[in-house]
Amino acid sequence: MREVCIIGVGMSKWGEIWKQSLRDMHTDAALKAIKASGVDHLDSMYVGCMSCGLFVGQEHLASLLTDYMGMCGLPATRVESACASGGMAVRQAFIEVASGISDIVMASGVEKMTDCSGDEATYALATAADQEYEVFHGATFPGLYAIMACAHMAKYGTTRAMLSAVSSKNHTNGAMNPVAQYPFKVTPAQVEKSVMIADPLRILDCSPITDGAAAVVVTTVDIAKKLGKPYVKIIGSGIGTDTIALAQRDDITTIKAATIASKMALKMAGKKITDIQFSEVHDCFTIAEIVVAESIGLYEPGKAGPAFLAGESALDGKFPINSSGGLKSKGHPVGATGVAQMVEVYKQLTGQAENGRQIPNSPKIGMAQNMGGSGGSSVVHIMEVA
Amino acid sequence: MREVCIIGVGMSKWGEIWKQSLRDMHTDAALKAIKASGVDHLDSMYVGCMSCGLFVGQEHLASLLTDYMGMCGLPATRVESACASGGMAVRQAFIEVASGISDIVMASGVEKMTDCSGDEATYALATAADQEYEVFHGATFPGLYAIMACAHMAKYGTTRAMLSAVSSKNHTNGAMNPVAQYPFKVTPAQVEKSVMIADPLRILDCSPITDGAAAVVVTTVDIAKKLGKPYVKIIGSGIGTDTIALAQRDDITTIKAATIASKMALKMAGKKITDIQFSEVHDCFTIAEIVVAESIGLYEPGKAGPAFLAGESALDGKFPINSSGGLKSKGHPVGATGVAQMVEVYKQLTGQAENGRQIPNSPKIGMAQNMGGSGGSSVVHIMEVA
Repeated sequence: MREVCIIGVGMSKWGEIWKQSLRDMHTDAALKAIKASGVDHLDSMYVGCMSCGLFVGQEHLASLLTDYMGMCGLPATRVESACASGGMAVRQAFIEVASGISDIVMASGVEKMTDCSGDEATYALATAADQEYEVFHGATFPGLYAIMACAHMAKYGTTRAMLSAVSSKNHTNGAMNPVAQYPFKVTPAQVEKSVMIADPLRILDCSPITDGAAAVVVTTVDIAKKLGKPYVKIIGSGIGTDTIALAQRDDITTIKAATIASKMALKMAGKKITDIQFSEVHDCFTIAEIVVAESIGLYEPGKAGPAFLAGESALDGKFPINSSGGLKSKGHPVGATGVAQMVEVYKQLTGQAENGRQIPNSPKIGMAQNMGGSGGSSVVHIMEVA
Repeated sequence: MREVCIIGVGMSKWGEIWKQSLRDMHTDAALKAIKASGVDHLDSMYVGCMSCGLFVGQEHLASLLTDYMGMCGLPATRVESACASGGMAVRQAFIEVASGISDIVMASGVEKMTDCSGDEATYALATAADQEYEVFHGATFPGLYAIMACAHMAKYGTTRAMLSAVSSKNHTNGAMNPVAQYPFKVTPAQVEKSVMIADPLRILDCSPITDGAAAVVVTTVDIAKKLGKPYVKIIGSGIGTDTIALAQRDDITTIKAATIASKMALKMAGKKITDIQFSEVHDCFTIAEIVVAESIGLYEPGKAGPAFLAGESALDGKFPINSSGGLKSKGHPVGATGVAQMVEVYKQLTGQAENGRQIPNSPKIGMAQNMGGSGGSSVVHIMEVA
């Protein structure tokens, strides 16, 4: 297997976007990444998208998007694993370049979620849960994560204040991210006064419905050196799955798919979790950031919440989490999220994070953890700068 | 890159299946393939499915299916390229094994299309066309292929009788396939008296709406030799894309994505098209079999129809095409079709085709050509038996 790296990244503006269609947003992000990378061609492309069929009535997405990028004929495949689709696209690009089949591969992600009604979007998102055992009975994602939150609170004494700390910290970071959907600060008090969605989760515990795209160019370290642009090596890639139905798991206070993916990525990288200096994690709900931080081994079960409340995950904390603003503030166009996490880790490792969002003391190793549904799938990447 | 092969195959019964859900059908095919292969584990899985979101309200499919196979936790990813989704799943498995990342990977495909109404299925299938430039204006796939048929007839003198010959030949073969949806013969006269769908295409020119699944186990030649089961090497894999909108192509009497994919696969295999002895091709409509045979270089433009009328593509002809019965007779559960093509080539090359469907004189090299939409994507594999 060859040494693989990311050499260029791009994102469209995220939010409720009316002036760009799905194909426009994707082209925007993709061309930015290509320009930043300095490559003169691509060998192939993987696009992560969760449910273009339900959101905009369009499958067969990868071919369509290569055409709109002006690269008609380019080998291109869509991959889907609910909200982990973007991370899966990066993993496929990594494997294809590592294998020697291709030298330069784009991994991108996109979702256009606001062209349908709120009810339709909720239905589309719910297809990441078990249709027969969960959705049919009325479960939606805020409800599923609320169940996880209640269980975590009951077992470990996790508090409302800990959830609020996650939201507030992510908005503090997101306020410095020029592409974020909600680039403003919120206080814990504001979180706690916001409207209840599914007890104990309030609207400021929930990531929003978002339109957006993100792209990274993946190539070999040898090619990157010749191109002379900043690059970060992908030293570990891991993937795990679990039952997509919450009720079928042994323990809903941990996310086994994230544990599997994290262990696989760390093993490939030859690193321990304590070697990692910062991470983007999949905070689709505030409770998710706490549970994931424990599931990937950063904290013992029940210890992440108190640590977050004490500021350990802040930009200048011991282990910064979601310097981008996370899904909460940056937004969550489901198929694009996993790719955008790679964009942020790349920016942090190459010193390019905008507007004072740069993590202090030039970190050298970062992680991105992306997740599908209530934890039915997860993909983890570890990146290192030379 | 390592030498890669297929060591075991499995299929569920195809048709309008009421006693199996999507997950049941997939488990059926997957467990058959695992049993046939003799492997004691899988390292990962790729599942091709076009639109489980629209057909059955379920995304996040790969994780769900590993769980139902009894392999919860297994790395698994869904890939989608409309009706080429199955072939893309095989290609990803090929790349992953070739790369050395995994040793034993399952590629499967599944679609459950009859749980929704005919109108809903037609809408779901239409998402393989360009939503903004084709579907919005009322185009559906029979209409798009009818336009291609008219153009091909006008340019090359292709006739009604040539289309009928394709349908009749595929039903002759499919009548010997135990999993086929429509395992009976039809005469050219019956095709020509069948109900008109989109002039010149009649219902017996069209592949049906089908429920079904197929699976193949992909591994290295070294492992296959140790397992001692019949195996066929995948010596070439190619992929191509084109505009998914028909109106944006230079020439609608050829399918450029199939040409690109075929050339790429032949180049990897170090073979010429004349080295190939038989093929499964993507006959979603009778005209498609004619256009594809020309696009992949088997025949000069305009020459495939007359050759088919003369019997060259019959089981005992010069170059047998769709010995399985093709999409026309075997059925077309869109995401499963590309995998089922690999199943048939495997069976033919290992002498396991049932009920007198075996191609005479023990062919050694076969091809599978899978296609998305009206030709917006295509994937081609070449297999050789030692």
